[in-house]
Amino acid sequence: MFDRDVYRARREGLRRGLGPGIALFLGNDESPMNYADNTYRFRQDSSFLYYFGLDTAGLVAIIDLDEGTETLYGPELTVEDFVWTGPLPSLGDRAALAGVERVMAPARLEEDLGRIRQAGRAVHFLPPYRPENKLKLLAWLGVPPDRASAEASVPFIRAVVEQRSVKSPEEIAEIEKAVDISVDMHLAALRLVRPGFTEARIAAAVHQVALAAGGDLSFPIIATVHGEVLHQHAQTETLTSGGMFLLDAGAETALHYAGDLSTTMPVDGRFTDRQKDVYRIALAAHETAKSALKPGAPHLDVHLAACRMIAEGLKGLGLMKGDLDEAVRRGAHALFFPCGEGHMMGLDVHDMEDLGEVYVGYEGRPKSTQFGLKSLRLARPLRPGFVVTVEPGIYFIPQLIDQWRAENRFPEHIDYDRVEAYKDFGGLRNEEDVLITGNGHRVLGRKKPLTVEEIEALVGKADA
Amino acid sequence: MFDRDVYRARREGLRRGLGPGIALFLGNDESPMNYADNTYRFRQDSSFLYYFGLDTAGLVAIIDLDEGTETLYGPELTVEDFVWTGPLPSLGDRAALAGVERVMAPARLEEDLGRIRQAGRAVHFLPPYRPENKLKLLAWLGVPPDRASAEASVPFIRAVVEQRSVKSPEEIAEIEKAVDISVDMHLAALRLVRPGFTEARIAAAVHQVALAAGGDLSFPIIATVHGEVLHQHAQTETLTSGGMFLLDAGAETALHYAGDLSTTMPVDGRFTDRQKDVYRIALAAHETAKSALKPGAPHLDVHLAACRMIAEGLKGLGLMKGDLDEAVRRGAHALFFPCGEGHMMGLDVHDMEDLGEVYVGYEGRPKSTQFGLKSLRLARPLRPGFVVTVEPGIYFIPQLIDQWRAENRFPEHIDYDRVEAYKDFGGLRNEEDVLITGNGHRVLGRKKPLTVEEIEALVGKADA
Repeated sequence: MFDRDVYRARREGLRRGLGPGIALFLGNDESPMNYADNTYRFRQDSSFLYYFGLDTAGLVAIIDLDEGTETLYGPELTVEDFVWTGPLPSLGDRAALAGVERVMAPARLEEDLGRIRQAGRAVHFLPPYRPENKLKLLAWLGVPPDRASAEASVPFIRAVVEQRSVKSPEEIAEIEKAVDISVDMHLAALRLVRPGFTEARIAAAVHQVALAAGGDLSFPIIATVHGEVLHQHAQTETLTSGGMFLLDAGAETALHYAGDLSTTMPVDGRFTDRQKDVYRIALAAHETAKSALKPGAPHLDVHLAACRMIAEGLKGLGLMKGDLDEAVRRGAHALFFPCGEGHMMGLDVHDMEDLGEVYVGYEGRPKSTQFGLKSLRLARPLRPGFVVTVEPGIYFIPQLIDQWRAENRFPEHIDYDRVEAYKDFGGLRNEEDVLITGNGHRVLGRKKPLTVEEIEALVGKADA
Repeated sequence: MFDRDVYRARREGLRRGLGPGIALFLGNDESPMNYADNTYRFRQDSSFLYYFGLDTAGLVAIIDLDEGTETLYGPELTVEDFVWTGPLPSLGDRAALAGVERVMAPARLEEDLGRIRQAGRAVHFLPPYRPENKLKLLAWLGVPPDRASAEASVPFIRAVVEQRSVKSPEEIAEIEKAVDISVDMHLAALRLVRPGFTEARIAAAVHQVALAAGGDLSFPIIATVHGEVLHQHAQTETLTSGGMFLLDAGAETALHYAGDLSTTMPVDGRFTDRQKDVYRIALAAHETAKSALKPGAPHLDVHLAACRMIAEGLKGLGLMKGDLDEAVRRGAHALFFPCGEGHMMGLDVHDMEDLGEVYVGYEGRPKSTQFGLKSLRLARPLRPGFVVTVEPGIYFIPQLIDQWRAENRFPEHIDYDRVEAYKDFGGLRNEEDVLITGNGHRVLGRKKPLTVEEIEALVGKADA
């Protein structure tokens, strides 16, 4: 945890940003895998972590925005519990670490919320993404589960987004720690990759680095010979000579701040000429996007600059054609780059995604519905203290190519006959994590291999 | 998956064992970590896997027990989904792998269940342990979430327990595969353990072995210098010379069958004399329990035989005293062994724990309320095809010792002055997985180091 004053100041800031009533923070419970007591590793809710820092299951906190009182509800453990869990500090001692003075047994919560509602006071809550928290809102506030997101408090969402978007120095240090571990994860993969190894074996080595550093993954590893599948989480293939291997993986520190990096590497240590051509286009888009990151720049423009570079490069290969301004405006490039160029990162790898991308990335305005652009999570102007990823990529997705060709989409911008020859190419991207500074940006963490030469110098160099 | 005939035969067996009505199988959904789309690795419900084998999220199946028809409800993916997930077989093709002929869109389910209930037919469901499935039962059948376990079908539970308790040859082969991987996990830890390494580093290496084999863990790793804490899942300590390190970890295969082993090792490669004394008592209890495993033997007796060996050994050290039959009957030994000697293992590491230990381990009869004995998961007579763990241990839990001493519990059986000197000892156990055969038992998997000499020969022998 950070010092208690950090959490106190955050809560004080929230109170200033939010009107009267009650702010209700639902901590997460343990998540059962295949029975109640066999659980996934516990992951606390990120907003709960941000305001209270307490990283155990079954906690709920309330801030009385009018009176300024704060109450933590949670279980106390008995000696018989200690047999299974080991000794734990009392709830009061844990609350004190977050600067919270009042603690209550969970049984008191329903009663207290009932009294608050009876007094006609507003109860602000955030959109629940966990089913156990939908059950709590139903039991405590009578919120129907299918209405829980719609009934969440927009002022609460906006106030949290406002605070969490701008990272403080201690958060930046923690994120940088996560990125450094993530770099080690990617170096481990680069050195291990070779024909005949399985995706699972490399993913396992990558995961080990994150665990050994005392944290875990910030999201399920993508470790795949099918880079064109954007969220390929199965690891069932074997690496073969001539192919590429894409790793998208990041660490989460013990304090739950995220790193998120991607690297594409040739399985046998040397990119083919065709791979190099496409790789260098993606890298040019990457550098273009990165150099556009500065305060005031709308992230939509950063994204479009990357799209434009990809379109230009693919025109150079004869895969795209015509007026490229027009092509990018209409979304023709999205056949090869159907997703966003980057997203916010912090306590969540897609930071605050549970609060709604419209609030996090679009200042409350609606997102585009255009294929490709609708997957951009962040369009708003950047501010100092934002941490974002940079990750343009180029993907040849056979099913998508077939569909577009059958529908004859953008024939003036896409040469389908030439694209046909790339249907077995796969996909590639690089990804770095970047802090927006007062006058520009700073790439976070230790340097990660990016160029063809830097990548090739490392692939397969580890003993098996 | 196994062959479709395996699943067909299991469902046919279930139909014979269960009366009229509808059997409703709720598959699991993805479990969100910190927002809806950042999920833990998917874990299908084990009974769903047992009867249908299909390992993707969002599936529900219904067996009409009267007509014999079977229907799988689940989503179909579009080309736009393939951009993110890669191409997947159609729902119909996946259902066919399980021998199921009818598939429906999820939207049809509520309608179909409504018609079934209107006809006054029984809808059997199993106790839900996942909050998302409590929400489904509320939405589809009007079952209040806090009543969902109570309203689960006892005939359905009994019929499933009857089938899943006895492992078939293909299941035993899969469990043995899991145990073999688990042995490799323990060998990795043994070779790596040394002073100065962190628990997290060793746990990471252990986890890597499970992942590289194409599966994952069957439960969160216990990798601790505090063996006396039975379910210590935090890995924040550093190993120190003179201490012991306890690993309780098992693999889950790609088909989700479990292994579950424990090993206790001296951090610097040599047990102290005091550690050896206690280790050998626990090992004697382990061998006593193992040799008692055979068809017809009540597992309660196996447990009590282990308790008796522990009590005898501790009497030899002067920690226990008096009439040991009486001590074990009254539960005095539970100060040092407050849990059960073993449990069923299969698709779940505590097999079928979600269905209720009373049905799985006690044939529907109530469990003991005595401290220690109440934590025994399996008491019923063993049958050929059962797979059980053997894991007696000896633990010195300071808080428990203090409490018992303050309450002066069993002064005729415990010499608290002598126990005081062991309060810094920690705890230890070994654990193996055993199949009950037609006339005895067989330890599953490759041989795992057990004796003091076997353990000492391996500790710290790996390059770092």
